[in-house]
Amino acid sequence: MRAAVLEATIAELAKTGYAALTVEGVAQRAGVHKTTIYRNWKDADGLVTDALAGRFATDIPVPDTGTVESDLRALARSLVATMTTGQGRALLTAVLSDAVRLPQLAEIKRDLFEARFRQAEPVVTRAIARGELPAETDPAELLKTLAAPIYFRLVFTSEPVDEATADRATDIALAAAHARVLPAV
Amino acid sequence: MRAAVLEATIAELAKTGYAALTVEGVAQRAGVHKTTIYRNWKDADGLVTDALAGRFATDIPVPDTGTVESDLRALARSLVATMTTGQGRALLTAVLSDAVRLPQLAEIKRDLFEARFRQAEPVVTRAIARGELPAETDPAELLKTLAAPIYFRLVFTSEPVDEATADRATDIALAAAHARVLPAV
Repeated sequence: MRAAVLEATIAELAKTGYAALTVEGVAQRAGVHKTTIYRNWKDADGLVTDALAGRFATDIPVPDTGTVESDLRALARSLVATMTTGQGRALLTAVLSDAVRLPQLAEIKRDLFEARFRQAEPVVTRAIARGELPAETDPAELLKTLAAPIYFRLVFTSEPVDEATADRATDIALAAAHARVLPAV
Repeated sequence: MRAAVLEATIAELAKTGYAALTVEGVAQRAGVHKTTIYRNWKDADGLVTDALAGRFATDIPVPDTGTVESDLRALARSLVATMTTGQGRALLTAVLSDAVRLPQLAEIKRDLFEARFRQAEPVVTRAIARGELPAETDPAELLKTLAAPIYFRLVFTSEPVDEATADRATDIALAAAHARVLPAV
């Protein structure tokens, strides 16, 4: 039930946007009664937070291949693979819907990205411990540098997003780390 | 009249999104009769294209300071200054509205970004001619690497976007160019 409701929440977000999303709409799409939803979630905001958090948290495994280059490449390729599926595009549409208008959505997004970056931080801290990256490299800054070119293409330039995109993002992030321009802000 | 109509188009886009935008709504907001608009533009798509193209084209001057570092820093700081104004946020909301749903909007965005990058290319080609950057550096790839971290923060992480953001984006783009990881794709 829980998985079906959260799946329906993402689909409703992609279709209607955040502002127009209703518990009724999610219930109908998931094929459950709305009282079932209210027993498990306080309101539509709770549904959206859980649905987006669950999706971001489970989508991308954190690799540990032994070198920072192959770890980052694997992370970037996973991100590309996830975001170019139908579900990934629905998720992107969902988080961009009404994007700049709703402060709650901005907070949800910030929390979600912070959680994602914290989760992948071991890739960077292990690389620093192995002497592969400068000690002052900030894990979150490096991971943002890795993600930014991929999201930029997905959202703005409408160019193809593929393994070459992931590999280029990896090269850019590594070049920046080695040039020591990614300390904590 | 023309400026008022295009300004009203951006405001309507930010408020209603692209799918719900009407020539009537723009006319009302601009304080002109809709036949005045139809004398100058074929339809709502024509309005949107002109409004977005005009805004992107005029917002950011192309610097020529003598060094690539200060040129890129100026470009990045102009982008930050533009996109953090009320009008800039309205423009961002406009281009993100219904973002992944409408193929026409994807095409408009791609064309606009391509035009912007072409316009700023001299910053990179002059730097290559001066021997400041590797000859294989692709101008558009470098400019995308410069823009990506700024847009990523604006759209996804909701962190502050300021001169420090611009300067870090400059450092990342230069590090990537010097590492020779930005040839044409």
